[in-house]
Amino acid sequence: MARIWSTELAAHAGQPVQLAGWLHRFRQLGHIGFLILRDGKGLAQVVIEDPKQMAELSQLPSETVLRVSGTAVLETEAPGGVEVHEPAIGVVSVPVVWPPFDLFRPAIKAQLPTILDHAAFALRHPRLRALHRLAAASAAGYRHALQMRGFVEVFTPKLVASATEGGANVFPVDYFGRSAYLAQSPQLYKQIMVGVYERVFEIGPAFRAEPHDTPRHLNEFVSLDFEMGFIQDHTTVMAMLADVLRGMLETVHEEASDEVALLKLTLPEVPAEIPAIHFTDAQQLIASGTGEDVEGQPDLAPAHERWLGDWARQTYGAEFLFVVGYPMIKRPFYTHPQPDRTACSNSFDLLFRGLELVTGGQRLHRYEDYLAALAARGLSAAPFTGYLEAFAHGMPPHGGCALSLERWVARLVDVANIRVTRLFPRDLNRLTP
Amino acid sequence: MARIWSTELAAHAGQPVQLAGWLHRFRQLGHIGFLILRDGKGLAQVVIEDPKQMAELSQLPSETVLRVSGTAVLETEAPGGVEVHEPAIGVVSVPVVWPPFDLFRPAIKAQLPTILDHAAFALRHPRLRALHRLAAASAAGYRHALQMRGFVEVFTPKLVASATEGGANVFPVDYFGRSAYLAQSPQLYKQIMVGVYERVFEIGPAFRAEPHDTPRHLNEFVSLDFEMGFIQDHTTVMAMLADVLRGMLETVHEEASDEVALLKLTLPEVPAEIPAIHFTDAQQLIASGTGEDVEGQPDLAPAHERWLGDWARQTYGAEFLFVVGYPMIKRPFYTHPQPDRTACSNSFDLLFRGLELVTGGQRLHRYEDYLAALAARGLSAAPFTGYLEAFAHGMPPHGGCALSLERWVARLVDVANIRVTRLFPRDLNRLTP
Repeated sequence: MARIWSTELAAHAGQPVQLAGWLHRFRQLGHIGFLILRDGKGLAQVVIEDPKQMAELSQLPSETVLRVSGTAVLETEAPGGVEVHEPAIGVVSVPVVWPPFDLFRPAIKAQLPTILDHAAFALRHPRLRALHRLAAASAAGYRHALQMRGFVEVFTPKLVASATEGGANVFPVDYFGRSAYLAQSPQLYKQIMVGVYERVFEIGPAFRAEPHDTPRHLNEFVSLDFEMGFIQDHTTVMAMLADVLRGMLETVHEEASDEVALLKLTLPEVPAEIPAIHFTDAQQLIASGTGEDVEGQPDLAPAHERWLGDWARQTYGAEFLFVVGYPMIKRPFYTHPQPDRTACSNSFDLLFRGLELVTGGQRLHRYEDYLAALAARGLSAAPFTGYLEAFAHGMPPHGGCALSLERWVARLVDVANIRVTRLFPRDLNRLTP
Repeated sequence: MARIWSTELAAHAGQPVQLAGWLHRFRQLGHIGFLILRDGKGLAQVVIEDPKQMAELSQLPSETVLRVSGTAVLETEAPGGVEVHEPAIGVVSVPVVWPPFDLFRPAIKAQLPTILDHAAFALRHPRLRALHRLAAASAAGYRHALQMRGFVEVFTPKLVASATEGGANVFPVDYFGRSAYLAQSPQLYKQIMVGVYERVFEIGPAFRAEPHDTPRHLNEFVSLDFEMGFIQDHTTVMAMLADVLRGMLETVHEEASDEVALLKLTLPEVPAEIPAIHFTDAQQLIASGTGEDVEGQPDLAPAHERWLGDWARQTYGAEFLFVVGYPMIKRPFYTHPQPDRTACSNSFDLLFRGLELVTGGQRLHRYEDYLAALAARGLSAAPFTGYLEAFAHGMPPHGGCALSLERWVARLVDVANIRVTRLFPRDLNRLTP
């Protein structure tokens, strides 16, 4: 008899079945016992009536690995509407320790550092593993949406000779005695690849050596990047991004509906057209709405992003809002200016539920514009030789954007600390497990 | 009129079309000119009859970015059976330099270091971009095959506190003044995740600080990893791997058939059952076949792997061969021994066309076995605390394997140097572009 997943149990009602998994919980209620078996996909209830089995199970620590054969029986009272009767139970592997906290409670009763220290155990909690399953479905949806639209997946180097955007916050690597750095983003490489495939995407790690110990900072994250050629301007990228977000949510609906239910999530709707507001108009709105003087500020404060998020919800019924035209001064050197207003940029941020989710825009595409942009920022062109070559050899107008998988999941699930969105987070103080 | 891809031209025969791309080649044959336009997907032939256009095009450097409108016309002599007549041509962007080598020749006429130095340009060569498109299709096929079989994608850290397998060859990172390393593989993390989802896979960068400057070494590569629980032994992993390889080749057939044709590849067949030979039997075969004394050697020499590859082709008509039961002494600490012969392991290598392609096997799953294995190798358990916790809390028999995307592509395309299989390779001497 082939082993089935717990999630397949209902389809086998009335039949003999074999399950395998972990002893999630064992409860004795008088003469009857309930074994909750957790496998890689879900939970199954196994009814124990044999006193000898009952005695044995009550001695086994949680997380004992078991094989269970029995009969699947429809039972409206059981979780999932089906349970296993008259089981034969085989012990595969017995834990050497008792759990540091219970996995069967709705939430883990421990502080975050304890949870993260015990990641190998804590990730088995149904909520945590649902959250990371949601991340996997989101990444799959992102990839699928782009592949359907002619984007080619690329794998660019994470070991680079200089800081991506000429900035600080890079981790130094000892590369055979030479200096190297961990890539902060695939930005320069994905632009080069527009010259090859026009449309490219990458899902890969990115590293930021920001020395901030906050609930919002991760030093390693998964960057979801795409870049495309022959665009009109940043609005072409924005329209593509909206399609891609719709694709991500579709895949989450399709592949992770159990997890969405378990986490009690209300997934957002991406409107047919995501509302957009120009940065300067947003500032005026904020000024008149809050009474605060924000004129001349080159960026939006987090509080003002939240204010704009509320405004978009009230005005458009939308959970997403594009802010376009950010001041050039706050954008990286490759940013394309707004042609009719060159202090502003053809760039955007996408706010989701009042927080910045995506940053993107049109890039410069002429070689001479790059030389001027680097010079204007006091940056030497030399470290960018291999990148600038793409523009020296002819590049179309192009643009793209990036979002962090962790930030997306954090917003969907509304977590208090971004660390729970990484399987094994890296922060200012944490390098293990 | 919406722009179409060059590959869509035949479907628009007789209609007005708009194309965009790069000036791949311009040839004048008497009073007629042929513009080959390269876009992100293919090439299109544009016929030039207007003397003024002819004069203009002959002045433009290769890689000038163009927009071309005209009429698609069936023409059996034209590449792809269709060409564009009576074009209107708009110049989008003009290169500032002339090409370092020609992209229109069947192969790039330059030495490898020159090609790699000019990657931003060289990757536009149809052969090179076909090769990397093949890599993308292979990765997509790997992912798809595993997702269909219930594997969950994971994103594990690439910044780690200690060398994965207790060995050397790691790149040190300055992590806020502390020592960290780049992950050599996701091995320990994917095993931990078997306790969460049972079946996991990862496609991500891996880093090996091997100070060897050979055509076979890369210091950064894409590792395709999977790991699965509740296996019988290593043969369960081998069967899954065979299915996954079939899936990869299916996706390559489906998504990259043009590239397979362009590169003139003969894709391999994965036999219904890949032949397998035990390490000690392989040694005896080699000894009797070559007359060389290999008894007692703990590994196979590359020449002997090639010999075995030939033997498998002759004996089974197979391009794949599993070698199982490698001596424990050459395998990492987490390797499961062969129960009836404990000097050998429940591990395997998969040889493809006479070269090692995949390494995998069954892992230890009992906590006490890990303590013994680490002690036997003189390794301290302390750096592995977060990993060992998974086993302390109950783990089923499990195993998995890893292959490098670059090695797979190198074998499919039969490249002389593995460097061409990376978009931007990192080697002992190369960190740019």
